[in-house]
Amino acid sequence: MRMRSRLTAGGTCPGSLREDVGATAILFAVFVRYDPDADAALWHWGNRSSSDNEFYFRYPSFQDVHVMVFVGFGFLMAFLQRYGFSSVAFTFLLAAFALQWATLVQGFFHSMHGGRIHVGVQSMINADFCAAAVLISFGAVLGKTGPVQLLLMALLEVLLFGLNEFVLLSVLGVKDAGGSMTIHTFGAYFGLALSRVLYRPQLEKSRHRQGSVYHSDLFAMIGTIFLWTFWPSFNSAPTMPGDGQHRTSLNTYYSLTASTLSTFALSALVGEHGRLDMVHIQNAALAGGVVVGTSGEMMLTPFGALAAGFLAGTVSTLGFKFFTPVLEAKFKVQDTCGVHNLHGMPGVLGALLGVLVAGLATHEAYGDGLGSVFPLVAGGRRSATAQAVFQLCGLLVTLTFASVGGGLGGLLLRLPFLGPPPDSQCFEDRIYWEVPGEREEEAQGSLGAEETDTRA
Amino acid sequence: MRMRSRLTAGGTCPGSLREDVGATAILFAVFVRYDPDADAALWHWGNRSSSDNEFYFRYPSFQDVHVMVFVGFGFLMAFLQRYGFSSVAFTFLLAAFALQWATLVQGFFHSMHGGRIHVGVQSMINADFCAAAVLISFGAVLGKTGPVQLLLMALLEVLLFGLNEFVLLSVLGVKDAGGSMTIHTFGAYFGLALSRVLYRPQLEKSRHRQGSVYHSDLFAMIGTIFLWTFWPSFNSAPTMPGDGQHRTSLNTYYSLTASTLSTFALSALVGEHGRLDMVHIQNAALAGGVVVGTSGEMMLTPFGALAAGFLAGTVSTLGFKFFTPVLEAKFKVQDTCGVHNLHGMPGVLGALLGVLVAGLATHEAYGDGLGSVFPLVAGGRRSATAQAVFQLCGLLVTLTFASVGGGLGGLLLRLPFLGPPPDSQCFEDRIYWEVPGEREEEAQGSLGAEETDTRA
Amino acid sequence: MRMRSRLTAGGTCPGSLREDVGATAILFAVFVRYDPDADAALWHWGNRSSSDNEFYFRYPSFQDVHVMVFVGFGFLMAFLQRYGFSSVAFTFLLAAFALQWATLVQGFFHSMHGGRIHVGVQSMINADFCAAAVLISFGAVLGKTGPVQLLLMALLEVLLFGLNEFVLLSVLGVKDAGGSMTIHTFGAYFGLALSRVLYRPQLEKSRHRQGSVYHSDLFAMIGTIFLWTFWPSFNSAPTMPGDGQHRTSLNTYYSLTASTLSTFALSALVGEHGRLDMVHIQNAALAGGVVVGTSGEMMLTPFGALAAGFLAGTVSTLGFKFFTPVLEAKFKVQDTCGVHNLHGMPGVLGALLGVLVAGLATHEAYGDGLGSVFPLVAGGRRSATAQAVFQLCGLLVTLTFASVGGGLGGLLLRLPFLGPPPDSQCFEDRIYWEVPGEREEEAQGSLGAEETDTRA
Repeated sequence: MRMRSRLTAGGTCPGSLREDVGATAILFAVFVRYDPDADAALWHWGNRSSSDNEFYFRYPSFQDVHVMVFVGFGFLMAFLQRYGFSSVAFTFLLAAFALQWATLVQGFFHSMHGGRIHVGVQSMINADFCAAAVLISFGAVLGKTGPVQLLLMALLEVLLFGLNEFVLLSVLGVKDAGGSMTIHTFGAYFGLALSRVLYRPQLEKSRHRQGSVYHSDLFAMIGTIFLWTFWPSFNSAPTMPGDGQHRTSLNTYYSLTASTLSTFALSALVGEHGRLDMVHIQNAALAGGVVVGTSGEMMLTPFGALAAGFLAGTVSTLGFKFFTPVLEAKFKVQDTCGVHNLHGMPGVLGALLGVLVAGLATHEAYGDGLGSVFPLVAGGRRSATAQAVFQLCGLLVTLTFASVGGGLGGLLLRLPFLGPPPDSQCFEDRIYWEVPGEREEEAQGSLGAEETDTRA
Repeated sequence: MRMRSRLTAGGTCPGSLREDVGATAILFAVFVRYDPDADAALWHWGNRSSSDNEFYFRYPSFQDVHVMVFVGFGFLMAFLQRYGFSSVAFTFLLAAFALQWATLVQGFFHSMHGGRIHVGVQSMINADFCAAAVLISFGAVLGKTGPVQLLLMALLEVLLFGLNEFVLLSVLGVKDAGGSMTIHTFGAYFGLALSRVLYRPQLEKSRHRQGSVYHSDLFAMIGTIFLWTFWPSFNSAPTMPGDGQHRTSLNTYYSLTASTLSTFALSALVGEHGRLDMVHIQNAALAGGVVVGTSGEMMLTPFGALAAGFLAGTVSTLGFKFFTPVLEAKFKVQDTCGVHNLHGMPGVLGALLGVLVAGLATHEAYGDGLGSVFPLVAGGRRSATAQAVFQLCGLLVTLTFASVGGGLGGLLLRLPFLGPPPDSQCFEDRIYWEVPGEREEEAQGSLGAEETDTRA
Repeated sequence: MRMRSRLTAGGTCPGSLREDVGATAILFAVFVRYDPDADAALWHWGNRSSSDNEFYFRYPSFQDVHVMVFVGFGFLMAFLQRYGFSSVAFTFLLAAFALQWATLVQGFFHSMHGGRIHVGVQSMINADFCAAAVLISFGAVLGKTGPVQLLLMALLEVLLFGLNEFVLLSVLGVKDAGGSMTIHTFGAYFGLALSRVLYRPQLEKSRHRQGSVYHSDLFAMIGTIFLWTFWPSFNSAPTMPGDGQHRTSLNTYYSLTASTLSTFALSALVGEHGRLDMVHIQNAALAGGVVVGTSGEMMLTPFGALAAGFLAGTVSTLGFKFFTPVLEAKFKVQDTCGVHNLHGMPGVLGALLGVLVAGLATHEAYGDGLGSVFPLVAGGRRSATAQAVFQLCGLLVTLTFASVGGGLGGLLLRLPFLGPPPDSQCFEDRIYWEVPGEREEEAQGSLGAEETDTRA
């Protein structure tokens, strides 16, 4: 028992969280103000109609993105048989922390006005996007890191996310509305690099817990279905209102249907006796949302969206079946949720698709809308080819930031006093949570059951 | 083991899916284009405000309908104790397939412009509606059909749905916004006719699996509650913006509260020892949404909505208790989810209610709004009575299309190479899925457990 | 067996429900009419754009509030191991009943026009708010009351809710958009007073069922996450469109992140061996939404929202850990869900925060927006200090109504023919429901298992 208390967050987690919260609150007090659209004194009701207020203007609201982040990611990671509490609740913890911290970091990079950060619906959406990247990284190290390590990871990742986003969107003029690069590629490779540094050769000791049970797979499907349903809103949330959001929704919708169909087809094809694998359906079926993250707002065409989704579902399913084992055996990267298959490869594909579609942009195809999709091209400051090259640079910058940052982050997370779970206690809620039994009789004698379990 | 691999989708499912996907993609490439509202070149930002874009105009968006279709239907069917994977995931497969295919079929019937199908928020909503009908039919045959059979069913049903919808809405000028006829009646009787043809006299062999366990009933309640919550948006999604959508939401909201209350009252009344039955709550409580599918946009009055919902909940609960057994014993129709009680009878009632309310329509009651609800009556081309007669014809056409189509579809689905599950393996995930155990110890030894299970 | 049938709702529940439904329907027929915005004859399409229709105007729609009420409260209460059916389904029953009844009661108090109650999106939101208060009270008595008792409770509570809301908003001119007072404080203390009167000294006999099992805690997290995600819409639904709703969303969003972080920190701090407790995460993390229910629409500042949320999460977690046991042992209040910690104390804190922020309101801080937040202050009819005093009176009135009303309600609920469950059968679905087994083999022999259970 004495040993266990050392493993847990006790003493460390509340302390570090209190400091985080305190520091964040002070920074909020100093820097953060309401956006004029949310400020009673600056919003002139008499002069403007409510449809001028950006809050109403944006149909896919921050709430839709919230649902993706909290319901989607939270439950998608709840597939592990004995790590459901941690999956759902640490998602909650990390996302809440990331939302606050990202508001400050992104505000610093993007929206300082007179030394103040103005918050409104746009900053909420941006912060949710950053939280999504943190949760993708969480998926790579799920079950192998304690809450203090995770908070430190989020602290670093949000900083680097803000920097990478700033370089791509503001310095390089890259387009990446749904975040194939900034969210998916960045989050996945940051997490994978981190997982590489935290490689556990003795993870075999916990392998019997690294799987699902029947009902945990159904909880995970809650995540999948909400991610699928809300992804069109996610990708279109930061694009230009008007045809832009409309088109992004359409492209995402079609791409997702195609990745779903290709996932079923491939899963049955590569499965033993033609049987389907829930892991594929839960994950690869969503790859169509990732792959149009960059090009969704462009004139991809419905057919292009179908083709992209089909490709992403295929690559993702094959990745789960064949590449994840290699990744662990050869490259020593232990990827609990397979984020490389759902976010990594489809994210890179999505970035490359963005390169292609940007390079093909013409005044003829975009008409007056060119200015809203590619303002630099419309303004004559860049050719479509140059935009494509910049898009490619954006991918390379993202991969560099993510892997170097994740690697360095991993080194920091190896500090012994951060309380990682021992190799034999990975994928186990019991070291962080008061856990009731599985069934009534056990729940009654849960303390006894627990002792038996830990003795075994 | 050799036998089992023949039962499964292996070899057939991926092949047929690949062909489906390929054919659909080609058709998309040839025919499908963005709606002007989603097209960068055709949408003139400078000239129009975003509230002119239909995407923003329609408050209940395709996403709300998506939630109904994927979350609602998917989890509602997850009540079976050993068929949760298939219920949730085949919902996903069928809906994704139906969305693509319906885009083409409905586009062909409704929105060809210069040989092109224009897709936008309206086509997405229409396709989701068609997917809902397919999932209703799925409910009738749930657990007794393999994925290849289901895909073939969807292929046929989408075609026939498109034709029936075209005849009703465009030829007969019938009003059916929330689809009492086109979605619920059609989907239910198509599925029931199909189930009749696929009747299994030996289903007794799988009867021990045709029930719920405690937590599978809770998963099903996720479906119920999301269906209930989003149904006002579902019914109002295709109605006219303005008072029409507002009124449809109100009517659906009140009708659902009434069907919920009547379901509880009836369930306790007919239950042994006055106990409630979760099957009734999960299903009959929703009948209020079905019954106002046609008349929801009309001047039904709040009282009318309450009365309709009360009636629908009553009929539906009594149907589950008394009629479903008769349906199987006398009419040889095995209706797994009781779609006859939730969609069939309430759908027909809803159509008849539509006949009644249409027949009572007056210029006085609808004022200027008559044109948006009954354009033919407002334009003087039809009397209210004639509209009522046409509404009735719509119901008869729907019942004919559904039963004949479902019957013929059933004959096709009996083709032996489509891989139906054997009578002893119905309602069983294991023949299509890699299934983990129920609990940790079993999950560890799942292969062993599985052998034990199948030997038994 | 004979005994059990007396315990259940059989005979009483359907009867009382039928009468309720009948009486409500008659009242609807006499009094309830569509709002002009939902009336075909009164809405002039040609003259107004759809953005003039209040239905479109209000971004956070009644559907968002619906999700909070049905999904959120329903699943949050599903944590009990053997009371999941009742938690989810009685939520459904009570909310459906409350929505109808509140439409009449609130209509009587607020929106009678010429002897008619006009229903529209606003009345739907208001009724949902009232249903939320009923469900909060349900949380206090969860597992210890039968459905007939609950319906009677709802009947009384809705009446009193309408009266209290009328006194606060219309007589005292108190501001309470998100309902810190009218919903949370009222619902919590009404339920607690009721629970006090219904105190069961022998509840120990059912104590072994008053806990969660592993997967029931995950079902409860569905409720938590949807409440968290939709709370910004809940609080902003009734505030003024424009900057008001925008600001309310922001404040709620930040307050929730802060209460989440403080809940994790405190839970680990007070937990044995630093372990976290799911009860805290499921509940206290939401206290941030409650605490800004009054002040969310005011110029609280983002920092103020963070501080409020932090405080609420702290108080709530400490309440669960230390105060709930005292409440039962010393004050004889058995609070099943800990509504005192999630709604009671944070609600009172929220009301006091409203007093403070209202007292600090200046023309400078609110500019032209003062009229929409504090119309009486802007109109010169009240000073900010007077508004603060009225806010405080509102809290006292609410506490009085809630405790006196709840106490009297409790006396009524003790009437013996209302069929309360016996002390040994609390927190048990089996007396109200046909319950299948937990697992397949049990489900097959569920009747046998049941007999064994009830004999024990």
